[in-house]
Amino acid sequence: MFYNNWIYPEDDSKILNTSIWSKIKRGNVSIASQSGTLSSHIFFDPEIIDFGLSKSISVGNEANIDIVDCLEYFKDDDKTDVIGLYIEEVKRGKEFLKLAKEITPTKPIIAIYAGGSEVTNRAIKSHTGSMAGNVKIYDAAFKKAGIIKTELVEEFIDLAMVFSKGIIPKGKRLGILTNSGGPGAMIANHAEKKGLIIPEFSQSLQEKLKNMTSNTASHSNPLDLTFDRNINNLYLSLPKVLMKSGEIDVIIMYGAFDIQAMGEYFLQNDVIRKSIDFGAKPPEVTQMAQAFITPTIKTSRKYSIPIFYINTNSSSGPWAKAMRECGANVFQLWDRPVRCIAKLCEYGEYRNRLS
Amino acid sequence: MFYNNWIYPEDDSKILNTSIWSKIKRGNVSIASQSGTLSSHIFFDPEIIDFGLSKSISVGNEANIDIVDCLEYFKDDDKTDVIGLYIEEVKRGKEFLKLAKEITPTKPIIAIYAGGSEVTNRAIKSHTGSMAGNVKIYDAAFKKAGIIKTELVEEFIDLAMVFSKGIIPKGKRLGILTNSGGPGAMIANHAEKKGLIIPEFSQSLQEKLKNMTSNTASHSNPLDLTFDRNINNLYLSLPKVLMKSGEIDVIIMYGAFDIQAMGEYFLQNDVIRKSIDFGAKPPEVTQMAQAFITPTIKTSRKYSIPIFYINTNSSSGPWAKAMRECGANVFQLWDRPVRCIAKLCEYGEYRNRLS
Repeated sequence: MFYNNWIYPEDDSKILNTSIWSKIKRGNVSIASQSGTLSSHIFFDPEIIDFGLSKSISVGNEANIDIVDCLEYFKDDDKTDVIGLYIEEVKRGKEFLKLAKEITPTKPIIAIYAGGSEVTNRAIKSHTGSMAGNVKIYDAAFKKAGIIKTELVEEFIDLAMVFSKGIIPKGKRLGILTNSGGPGAMIANHAEKKGLIIPEFSQSLQEKLKNMTSNTASHSNPLDLTFDRNINNLYLSLPKVLMKSGEIDVIIMYGAFDIQAMGEYFLQNDVIRKSIDFGAKPPEVTQMAQAFITPTIKTSRKYSIPIFYINTNSSSGPWAKAMRECGANVFQLWDRPVRCIAKLCEYGEYRNRLS
Repeated sequence: MFYNNWIYPEDDSKILNTSIWSKIKRGNVSIASQSGTLSSHIFFDPEIIDFGLSKSISVGNEANIDIVDCLEYFKDDDKTDVIGLYIEEVKRGKEFLKLAKEITPTKPIIAIYAGGSEVTNRAIKSHTGSMAGNVKIYDAAFKKAGIIKTELVEEFIDLAMVFSKGIIPKGKRLGILTNSGGPGAMIANHAEKKGLIIPEFSQSLQEKLKNMTSNTASHSNPLDLTFDRNINNLYLSLPKVLMKSGEIDVIIMYGAFDIQAMGEYFLQNDVIRKSIDFGAKPPEVTQMAQAFITPTIKTSRKYSIPIFYINTNSSSGPWAKAMRECGANVFQLWDRPVRCIAKLCEYGEYRNRLS
């Protein structure tokens, strides 16, 4: 055990942990993988993993148990809400698809399928000895079964994180709330390429937003505040108005800057104090997160409209951590959340079609 | 100034710094941007930026100077080796393309163009008042001028970092060196989709590799060591053999694990001591980087074959930092380097065609 700075959580003494890692957050995501890397190495650095793990099983070349056995187990496991798979070959295809179809209406399945081309099949054959199949067949089968497919490990991690929160959008209309025009344009550009809709807000909604913002703002969607200092608006009022409008299904917010680092500045300008009474002392970062994030996440849950925060200061600093503890999806830059939202919405539409 | 933990480097007292950030590493990348975010906000967290900045100019809506003025300046600036642009509209198209064509054979230009669709044009119009043009026209013009186009901010940052090192590959044949089969397969899969070639190694090269590795390894490309503990081989001998083979143009290496965290383990097993004599004391992380990274980077420069290291432990820990100080490209996961390699090779081929 070379990570002697990693300690077992107290209650872990009662749990069989076959992983060499111990400081893994417990949660509702379970993984079955034909590679040890996806079930174990991605947890080397807890900073990059923002979801809690329920079970993680490396089935290797499936000499004893296989992916289907794991799905059977995860299906009825009340500690598993989200399932992650790494697949080089599905050996029992029929059973796999039957089970997946039963699972995906309630528990999202995120799967990496690494095979399909001459080169990857060569790689796979030398790894697990599997015969990987045609990628088009896998694509079609996964789609039919409602499995969310990805080829990217970061997307796999991001989706597990977002799905573990259980807020599933009903459509794919994206509302962009931003403190800066450039990221607004880049988010819109990328989101459109990923199949999302960025609807122009209705005249009545634009009027409402106009009354709430400074005259340098623009209101059509992206809603661009142009570095407005009214963080009460940014974190609380505007997301609420957007969520209640019925015009969008998901929100991305650029400008969730490090409120702690900016605290002095905001306090000097009385921005925070005007909004919320924290008493005599300067507010702690957790207090601020509870004030600015918790109510919005509550509204997000109520309307089933996920919100994604982008904090360019740091994705692992105290403010990002405090936001996460309040249930927020936090990213440092805007590429990954957009990509993630596209797949989240695709799954949301799948669930909608079923119900 | 709310980042009071950020201090000015000593020599910065002599330099006019118009940015609100001060702890920005100096280097050879210059940015001109029609958004303040790309010239400034992405530098909020120095941890995510692994390149040094020469100049960063926000031209906004170009009321005074424009992107073309900046290109003119960067072209003859001997402190600028790499140019990054964020573009919503090129107003002086002819001058822009003429200059770009003169620059790209020696200095790579990386450009984000955010316009082109109905929605992004709406976003852009409300941001800088620009009329964004047809994306296909921009794509074709950029390609002809050898400009490396991206829509992703992370890719923009990664490319700036990699190009700033100045090691440009001659083709797009990727060698995959891995400690684990899963990432090997995923890298191959993604790389192939991005247009890279993963050639099967020749029989003679495979024989050579077979003699150097354990009998659980596979040698066709990916070269999969299956968690071999011979780090001398992993860091020094194998990259050198691949670089000298003439069979690949760029290398990606999965398994550059945190040598410091693993130090105790490796030392116990005498792996490091067998390879290199560090004297009586346990080696420092910088000593280890100098021993295991520096010679490989030297070979990389000699053959113009860039190498990308993946360290799942941490991309900002002491080992990652020590590797970077020796000139290594370090990533935590394998999606970003693959994407980056594809564009790096595209530029390499462009340069080859010209020479």
